Amino acid sequence: MEFVIIGGDAAGMSAASRAKRNRPEISVTVFEKTRDVSYSACGMPYNIADPHRPLDDLVVRHAHVFRKKQGIDLRVGHCVEAINPADKTVSGTDPEGNSFQKAYDKLLIATGASAVIPDLPGKDLPGVLVLKNLEDGRKIKDWIARTPVEQAVIIGMGYIALEMAEALCRRGIAVEMIKPRPVFLPWMPPELSDSIRKEVENHGVRLHPGKTIEGIEAGGKGLRVVTPEGRLEGEMVLVAVGVSPNSRLAADAGLDLGPRKAVAVDRSLRTSNPDIFAAGDCADAFHIVTGQRAYIPLALRANRAGWAVADNVCGMKTTLPGVAGTAVFKVFDLQVARTGLTVQEAEAAGFQPAAVTIKARSRAHAHPGASDFWVHMVGDNVSGRLLGVQMAGKEGAAHRINAPAVALHAKMTVADFYQCDLAYAPPFSPVWDPMLTAANQLLKELP
Amino acid sequence: MEFVIIGGDAAGMSAASRAKRNRPEISVTVFEKTRDVSYSACGMPYNIADPHRPLDDLVVRHAHVFRKKQGIDLRVGHCVEAINPADKTVSGTDPEGNSFQKAYDKLLIATGASAVIPDLPGKDLPGVLVLKNLEDGRKIKDWIARTPVEQAVIIGMGYIALEMAEALCRRGIAVEMIKPRPVFLPWMPPELSDSIRKEVENHGVRLHPGKTIEGIEAGGKGLRVVTPEGRLEGEMVLVAVGVSPNSRLAADAGLDLGPRKAVAVDRSLRTSNPDIFAAGDCADAFHIVTGQRAYIPLALRANRAGWAVADNVCGMKTTLPGVAGTAVFKVFDLQVARTGLTVQEAEAAGFQPAAVTIKARSRAHAHPGASDFWVHMVGDNVSGRLLGVQMAGKEGAAHRINAPAVALHAKMTVADFYQCDLAYAPPFSPVWDPMLTAANQLLKELP
Repeated sequence: MEFVIIGGDAAGMSAASRAKRNRPEISVTVFEKTRDVSYSACGMPYNIADPHRPLDDLVVRHAHVFRKKQGIDLRVGHCVEAINPADKTVSGTDPEGNSFQKAYDKLLIATGASAVIPDLPGKDLPGVLVLKNLEDGRKIKDWIARTPVEQAVIIGMGYIALEMAEALCRRGIAVEMIKPRPVFLPWMPPELSDSIRKEVENHGVRLHPGKTIEGIEAGGKGLRVVTPEGRLEGEMVLVAVGVSPNSRLAADAGLDLGPRKAVAVDRSLRTSNPDIFAAGDCADAFHIVTGQRAYIPLALRANRAGWAVADNVCGMKTTLPGVAGTAVFKVFDLQVARTGLTVQEAEAAGFQPAAVTIKARSRAHAHPGASDFWVHMVGDNVSGRLLGVQMAGKEGAAHRINAPAVALHAKMTVADFYQCDLAYAPPFSPVWDPMLTAANQLLKELP
Repeated sequence: MEFVIIGGDAAGMSAASRAKRNRPEISVTVFEKTRDVSYSACGMPYNIADPHRPLDDLVVRHAHVFRKKQGIDLRVGHCVEAINPADKTVSGTDPEGNSFQKAYDKLLIATGASAVIPDLPGKDLPGVLVLKNLEDGRKIKDWIARTPVEQAVIIGMGYIALEMAEALCRRGIAVEMIKPRPVFLPWMPPELSDSIRKEVENHGVRLHPGKTIEGIEAGGKGLRVVTPEGRLEGEMVLVAVGVSPNSRLAADAGLDLGPRKAVAVDRSLRTSNPDIFAAGDCADAFHIVTGQRAYIPLALRANRAGWAVADNVCGMKTTLPGVAGTAVFKVFDLQVARTGLTVQEAEAAGFQPAAVTIKARSRAHAHPGASDFWVHMVGDNVSGRLLGVQMAGKEGAAHRINAPAVALHAKMTVADFYQCDLAYAPPFSPVWDPMLTAANQLLKELP
């Protein structure tokens, strides 16, 4: 059995390792086009914040371990350029520029995603950077060290952009953030996004939402982001407006694509070709709440999907129920978390959502050190089902969000969730956890 | 309609307030034998730790608010001495020593629990103290201030005992803890209880488990706890060996009692007399995992039960599904949490439990500031159901425990829980949350 994997990060190496653990006799070959495998991409902003930590700290397992200890034929610098389903081969170019071809019995496409770069004049200027893979991270750290960077402009205000704003601030860099859309975090209710905006601004970051970006120019302090109202100057421009799935290989091979042009897979992670699987940031998934296909590129589901592919390749039939879109990020001293659907997503999926936003305290009555804690909760007017939750606060949001995530998997109603026996001790929450307070409020809106 | 409530803390005042909100025309009378109503008993150790905070900070809502703004006939210092179901009255003694009698249409027994005091010689000596109600807290704070206390002996090693050990340490008091049973925290697996024992000992607390306590004597530094092996000296002895439900009134009135002699109630909080309800620390509850009666005196379920009683009294039929026994406590820098059943409890309830204990890290690979994180997980060999979880760690245990608590309410299997899409960001957890790692390990033990 020849199991071939394209891509050597979370999904690819998870699948490779697990296949070898499941059935050591299987031949497992991984082609990775960069030099880097198995690293914590999500850790990059935190590493970039610290000039004294090498970026390679983020490598979870080194290539030689995969090769020597696990018996995986791991080939870095190998760029797969075509999948040929008719003869079940992949072909590409090795680090010396020679062509290679490899036959597979089962193939996993784990090509990840790429940072989206808008087609702006000046996007290729030196100092215009993105952050997706480890090489991107190295370039950013090198650029900061060499230039040096005193001011930076970040295009985009999503969670990677915000994590990077914090990282750059910790390096003593003055940060401005700009984006064309007028609303700061459009998927959040205003109470939550305002608290995050204040947190960011209180740390000295200047926000410029709703500004048309005409291009990037060299000059002044190094680079200028040009808008009709003026220029933002800096020695570095980070473009962080999102990612898009690397699905060209799959599309060229005639495989079906799903939302956002991610590779479409079933609950066994099979593409439209039964011998080809896809997993990780290049693939779609079923949303646990809507049952519909969704593109939610996050690390846990990449690892989980990699394992499931390995099990299926090894004959241990495995299906994944789906993703809830549970995510958390830290922005300065705030934790911001979400799971499930926003009101807009719920409407788009055919629900009739009702929602509440409550502000509570992070600790019990009269307990010192308490801070504000926001919960936004969405339920369905027809079925009473819990559809989604968002939270923000200085403590507890990151781990609290797992409770409604489990409730979404269990397809609980808001009334069911409200009855859950959650933990209480004065240093950690009010007697009624803010999630229960939100559920109680939301129940009043539901029939 | 005359709604009469015996006891004015969590369950009693929750019921009184909600009944008035539901139906302002109802007459609500509360008899509270102490002078204190509606306070955060769980906050007392943290308040005692700070000599500058008055204990009355813990009062959530003052008596005059209940009386003036909510129209509740709240009578403090009124001790109910008998319930007479035949003529639907309660009788007792008022603060002036006069007898009173009051007729009810519906009665709520919310008499709480009392600290258990073992029948030891010397248990009534000055300086031998307990902690249950606000007056107990005042006595402790006064005793520490007046004596002054340099050394204290705590009899018991449960969570209140441990919270008080921390509180006394923060006051600069040297603490010794003693109990007859040999195992430190017998409901925990050794890996978790060892981590807690070390945390306590690292803060200078000396533990003496497995010591027979012969009595308490006056003399030496003030008081001496006498064991066959020697004496522990201090100016204060805190007895914290647990609580027992205040169910004598109910028993004398012929009402059924449940486990630990708590007042037995159905899922509507009705006792064996349909016009009499019971809620809070005096009453039992159904366990969500076993479906059996259990005595788990905790604050959230007291508040929740109080509300449910009010709804039922007001004709809005309400039942509570039950409790999961979710609890958390802080001991110095550790968070310790549990939900559901231990292995022993699972066996006693007729399950065939399997269990694993894993040690993970609190943050992602290579993320600074990570610490050890333990998860113990119990599942059923027959059904595959998740039965219980325990956790300990410096960060995240208190809020993480809510996720398996929700899973217990949903009667999830371990396999279902393992598939849940939990949150990940490097500052908050590994990609695979320790709970998922534990579930994955446990799945290997289950058929």
